[in-house]
Amino acid sequence: MMTRHRFIFGLGCLILLCGQAVSHDPRYRTPIRIPDIPGYKTLKCDFHTHTVFSDGAVWPDIRSEEAWREGLDAVAITEHIEYQPHKEDLPTNHERSFEIAKPHGDRLDVIVIKGSEVTRDMPPGHLNAVFLEQAGPLDTEPWSQALEEAHSQGAFIFWNHPGWDGQQSDGVARWYPEHTDLVEKGQLRGIEVINAREYYPEAHRWCLEKNLTILANSDIHWPLNLDYDVRQGDKRPVTLVFAEERSAEGIKKALFARRTAAYAAGMLIGKEEFLGPIFEASVEVLNSSVELRGTRPSFVRIHNHSEIDFELTGASSFVEISAPDELVLRGESTVLLQIRSTSRERSGSKSFRLGYSVDNLKLTPDRTLSIAFPIEVTFVPEPEE
Amino acid sequence: MMTRHRFIFGLGCLILLCGQAVSHDPRYRTPIRIPDIPGYKTLKCDFHTHTVFSDGAVWPDIRSEEAWREGLDAVAITEHIEYQPHKEDLPTNHERSFEIAKPHGDRLDVIVIKGSEVTRDMPPGHLNAVFLEQAGPLDTEPWSQALEEAHSQGAFIFWNHPGWDGQQSDGVARWYPEHTDLVEKGQLRGIEVINAREYYPEAHRWCLEKNLTILANSDIHWPLNLDYDVRQGDKRPVTLVFAEERSAEGIKKALFARRTAAYAAGMLIGKEEFLGPIFEASVEVLNSSVELRGTRPSFVRIHNHSEIDFELTGASSFVEISAPDELVLRGESTVLLQIRSTSRERSGSKSFRLGYSVDNLKLTPDRTLSIAFPIEVTFVPEPEE
Amino acid sequence: MMTRHRFIFGLGCLILLCGQAVSHDPRYRTPIRIPDIPGYKTLKCDFHTHTVFSDGAVWPDIRSEEAWREGLDAVAITEHIEYQPHKEDLPTNHERSFEIAKPHGDRLDVIVIKGSEVTRDMPPGHLNAVFLEQAGPLDTEPWSQALEEAHSQGAFIFWNHPGWDGQQSDGVARWYPEHTDLVEKGQLRGIEVINAREYYPEAHRWCLEKNLTILANSDIHWPLNLDYDVRQGDKRPVTLVFAEERSAEGIKKALFARRTAAYAAGMLIGKEEFLGPIFEASVEVLNSSVELRGTRPSFVRIHNHSEIDFELTGASSFVEISAPDELVLRGESTVLLQIRSTSRERSGSKSFRLGYSVDNLKLTPDRTLSIAFPIEVTFVPEPEE
Amino acid sequence: MMTRHRFIFGLGCLILLCGQAVSHDPRYRTPIRIPDIPGYKTLKCDFHTHTVFSDGAVWPDIRSEEAWREGLDAVAITEHIEYQPHKEDLPTNHERSFEIAKPHGDRLDVIVIKGSEVTRDMPPGHLNAVFLEQAGPLDTEPWSQALEEAHSQGAFIFWNHPGWDGQQSDGVARWYPEHTDLVEKGQLRGIEVINAREYYPEAHRWCLEKNLTILANSDIHWPLNLDYDVRQGDKRPVTLVFAEERSAEGIKKALFARRTAAYAAGMLIGKEEFLGPIFEASVEVLNSSVELRGTRPSFVRIHNHSEIDFELTGASSFVEISAPDELVLRGESTVLLQIRSTSRERSGSKSFRLGYSVDNLKLTPDRTLSIAFPIEVTFVPEPEE
Repeated sequence: MMTRHRFIFGLGCLILLCGQAVSHDPRYRTPIRIPDIPGYKTLKCDFHTHTVFSDGAVWPDIRSEEAWREGLDAVAITEHIEYQPHKEDLPTNHERSFEIAKPHGDRLDVIVIKGSEVTRDMPPGHLNAVFLEQAGPLDTEPWSQALEEAHSQGAFIFWNHPGWDGQQSDGVARWYPEHTDLVEKGQLRGIEVINAREYYPEAHRWCLEKNLTILANSDIHWPLNLDYDVRQGDKRPVTLVFAEERSAEGIKKALFARRTAAYAAGMLIGKEEFLGPIFEASVEVLNSSVELRGTRPSFVRIHNHSEIDFELTGASSFVEISAPDELVLRGESTVLLQIRSTSRERSGSKSFRLGYSVDNLKLTPDRTLSIAFPIEVTFVPEPEE
Repeated sequence: MMTRHRFIFGLGCLILLCGQAVSHDPRYRTPIRIPDIPGYKTLKCDFHTHTVFSDGAVWPDIRSEEAWREGLDAVAITEHIEYQPHKEDLPTNHERSFEIAKPHGDRLDVIVIKGSEVTRDMPPGHLNAVFLEQAGPLDTEPWSQALEEAHSQGAFIFWNHPGWDGQQSDGVARWYPEHTDLVEKGQLRGIEVINAREYYPEAHRWCLEKNLTILANSDIHWPLNLDYDVRQGDKRPVTLVFAEERSAEGIKKALFARRTAAYAAGMLIGKEEFLGPIFEASVEVLNSSVELRGTRPSFVRIHNHSEIDFELTGASSFVEISAPDELVLRGESTVLLQIRSTSRERSGSKSFRLGYSVDNLKLTPDRTLSIAFPIEVTFVPEPEE
Repeated sequence: MMTRHRFIFGLGCLILLCGQAVSHDPRYRTPIRIPDIPGYKTLKCDFHTHTVFSDGAVWPDIRSEEAWREGLDAVAITEHIEYQPHKEDLPTNHERSFEIAKPHGDRLDVIVIKGSEVTRDMPPGHLNAVFLEQAGPLDTEPWSQALEEAHSQGAFIFWNHPGWDGQQSDGVARWYPEHTDLVEKGQLRGIEVINAREYYPEAHRWCLEKNLTILANSDIHWPLNLDYDVRQGDKRPVTLVFAEERSAEGIKKALFARRTAAYAAGMLIGKEEFLGPIFEASVEVLNSSVELRGTRPSFVRIHNHSEIDFELTGASSFVEISAPDELVLRGESTVLLQIRSTSRERSGSKSFRLGYSVDNLKLTPDRTLSIAFPIEVTFVPEPEE
Repeated sequence: MMTRHRFIFGLGCLILLCGQAVSHDPRYRTPIRIPDIPGYKTLKCDFHTHTVFSDGAVWPDIRSEEAWREGLDAVAITEHIEYQPHKEDLPTNHERSFEIAKPHGDRLDVIVIKGSEVTRDMPPGHLNAVFLEQAGPLDTEPWSQALEEAHSQGAFIFWNHPGWDGQQSDGVARWYPEHTDLVEKGQLRGIEVINAREYYPEAHRWCLEKNLTILANSDIHWPLNLDYDVRQGDKRPVTLVFAEERSAEGIKKALFARRTAAYAAGMLIGKEEFLGPIFEASVEVLNSSVELRGTRPSFVRIHNHSEIDFELTGASSFVEISAPDELVLRGESTVLLQIRSTSRERSGSKSFRLGYSVDNLKLTPDRTLSIAFPIEVTFVPEPEE
């Protein structure tokens, strides 16, 4: 009977008691498949999360567990300093959520980063300070003093959701003199170009113009699957960090050096020096030489090792050959790129560079990454049937 | 630009405002498709959950939200009275998690039930009291007094995970004189035949012998998707309650009247008076008359309106016809049941009752539900080719 | 050992015996969940398919089997008359594919319709004749005579993929005098507004202006899962036919009476007299009365019984309440529609009709279905905290 | 309008041009993730398929296309010589299906192999000959002569579905003197240990005893998604071939050298010299040193690069530590293997080899692969709280 019932309900489980840690079903981590690039590891990070210690809904160790499960390398715990709606049940303690999340992360090899969200009216709005030593000293009246304190601890400070309609009713991000001042003092170093499901093109532009770090964070409050529909494959946004080493120090250094990209909703946002190499490291042309007989199609087979579906559009056009104007390089799959000669009688050989724009790799709000596949074609004439 | 960025990231969202409730992405409820039966509504309930107010990991409103999303009708919040590992951060308040979960449930039309887990050594082990007025008075030394108190409040009391290896190292449930005593006093009314992923056949037998209510509960501590792999379609166990009306009162009355079944891992456990009608209400034979020409196959088409995959085995055998020995009636699908004549020359008409055992509808630990499809066959002889 | 290996590999199977029909794994039909409307059954039909008997790649019975599996009610087999690329292996026989597909459909209760594709240069291009008696007589030189013949057999004739880039290099459908002539003679009765993955807005307009029947067909040549990515939930387009009865005759009558809509890629295209009732029959408002306390949100819960994700946009705006501007009513789910009062002090009761446009229910190329939810609101003022 | 409608229906497509090859939606290949082993490439092959040219239901090029899409390296086309149920429509031509399938495979870089199924009563039953020069000469009365002919062409001959209930009504494979004779003449070289969904343990034993090649083939007749439920992730069985090079010659040589394994329903069947290296190449222990503080758990993180879910059972037991008795190493995921000290006071360091049996890697019908993880443990005593 024992064997029978265990078999029916699969690999066991359960819970336990008094003073003991909880044991569980098998726990799995699913990697985020985006490759490293030459010189850097591509780390997947979320620098903006909440727990019950401010207005979130989970115990802090859950943020470490979720990060591990989803293939993240690092997560920052960033409670609101000023907004403590649970404080009557759970008295304010600004250091506590990190204290709880950190050892759980350590056991799973997830890097847990101490942070806080300085939560003020606009300007300057909400700002996250990550890589703090102590969060408590930020609990001070003038916001400038709170940021000063974070800065003096060596924290990396960025502006959260600048177009959030809680502070900008039309959803448009606006730059204030206060932000200029913070940048000049070296206190404001980055902006959330993506927060949860919102993209702020203005913020994207400011990052490029003012030399600030691009970030994409979840700002998650509920358990992950209630904010992201994991049953349907939905995922939180992450900041890709291009780090010399997989460590807290490596991440911090990369943030200050602006070696990041945003990854959200199947889209990458970042500078060409990072997005280009990601595309290069992801995509492999399996055969770049094709023979074209008459007008019959031949195929260039292209494998995409990453999980990103690269959306190619705007094929370059040639007199001699036709190629699809649009093509999706589906993640972890090989696709056929179909080439034909435009004439039955053509003969000889020729090289082409078949260019495309990658629509979901965004360099600026208005420009996407351009790529090209080198193709060698041998034409074999085929007489009319 | 606004239209563009909204379009890219889909239907909007967003997040708090100081002092305001949080607003979110669209929130969806997926029904559990198990039909009502004659005379009763089939309510889906979980009578055993934890939050940060004992050793769980979510704020209490999350339990109401999860219940709504997953198609549950009711959820009980049942913190440990005696086990309060978060109390240094979150001082003990036995009434508080229900106070928080209840209004969230009300807004979503989920019935939230006040309960507590009396958490003692074996015997009597852990017992849940649900439909409490006040949980605080259960915080008293002798367990008999705690259960007395719950009983005096009119609570329904059941024994949790009787074979749990935290209290029975071999995983086998054992009945103690203390349990006999509780049953005799009318205090112990039910047992978890299923807790999380474990099934206790001994407990199943006791429910039948001692006339106790069958329960299946999640005993969930973490956010749902961390304990159940929702990405892969995994689900928590639920107690099906056959209630005269969809209300707290209707559920309480049904529990005392033992009108329940356990639903876990695609299996139903309960009495024939409930499992029979569920099968009847779920399964529709679309054509019960078939013509058999020679030995060529014909099909009885059977539609299953429920989400349960009914696993039929052990077909009754007949001289005149053959039918598949095994067949799965996949949920929300129509299946072909293939019938053939055993002889090319047979003619005439005949009625059959094609019986099967439904392997995943368990009446006792050793017996499953028997069903039969009535089929009218007309035989048309077909000469040798 | 026997039991062991059967268990491992699941519910058995297998394959033929010389001269015998093949037996298989359990075969399942998944319904297309779109409800009937008052007065009519909503039948799901594909009027354009090919097999090895013209330039398709499957034996004809496969088209019946695929139709049954996917929840279709009817499928027409419509080989090219003039294009017979397999004829050196498989000599032309215009009646044969229907002869093979029909008995397989009969056994599964799928209605199989005899048709042919008259395959000519533009004008008039390719036209399907369905509900033919005999396909052979259409194999005649002047296209006008082929259509005359089909018409004399009582067939329903429609124009296929009018903007297909094999005949219109810019993908734009063009109307020729020949088509006017065919309409005037009563021979041309409908147009494919959707063929496979293409939508022709010009054709949509012509159906409305010239009183022609709207069709959406697959024009499938390969096995279904090679043309539609079923692993990812991709589906073929179908014509919804609003029929008085589920029969070949019922379908034919409805086609001539223009009682159809196109269903493709999650979108419905048709007249308001059909799309309105489909929305009505699909969507149920579970609670239309809400109480609004201060500016806290309340929820109208809306259940969608159909499989279509209705995409609502453009909420009507009111002084007293705010509602989401966009909302997807996900198929077979309940969604929360969140309402708030715009003022904390408001009191009293009021009725609203909250209107939306359903973006994926298209009445014309430029206009979508408008709907409204009646909502009763009771305002409860809430003093400043 | 054009942009609008293209956008709605995604990346365009479409179909035929008179006399021209058909063009399609993007076509994708999903790799089968099983790694190469030292010295050999792991090729995925199906040596048993049918088309309309015997009793199958697809045009032959579809078998090449399906093979490419599913990540196969090679497919053999093996029509029945003697069973030609379509011959009245499609006159018998034993060479033709290979002629059609081969160039389609060439364009996709799928290796298409010429074969035939010699289809006789038992004994000897059905046998496949692959790597034929000409199939026609096998169409001769005495089966011994047909096999002689195949052998003289250098073909590799194997016995199909030896326990198939069309020839063995109890599903048990039986060995006849005729098979001994064929083995002695060097004509019979392998057996299908798996055909479609059936596993024949007797055949598995014979392969080991008589030194024959293990094969697993689909014997597919219908389009793949009608025989395998691809919507649910179901897959055909394949023979893994360990080849020195990815070529027809490399495969043929490996077959004769018995370098194969069967892969079906998530299970591998083969010799330890192949399954051991597959496990080794798939599984990576990310941290083999753990520190155990008191009785608190620590984790060994194990990543599985393959797609196979390795099912570990029967953990070796130790006095000092406890580990889970069962654990599934889910494909393309990292799992936590939880270790605890059995005593709070233990100190010092010790090495363990934590052994498991891999239940779904079968060396014989009765024995599975044994593996062990080397683990270094440092014990840190923790005083009673």
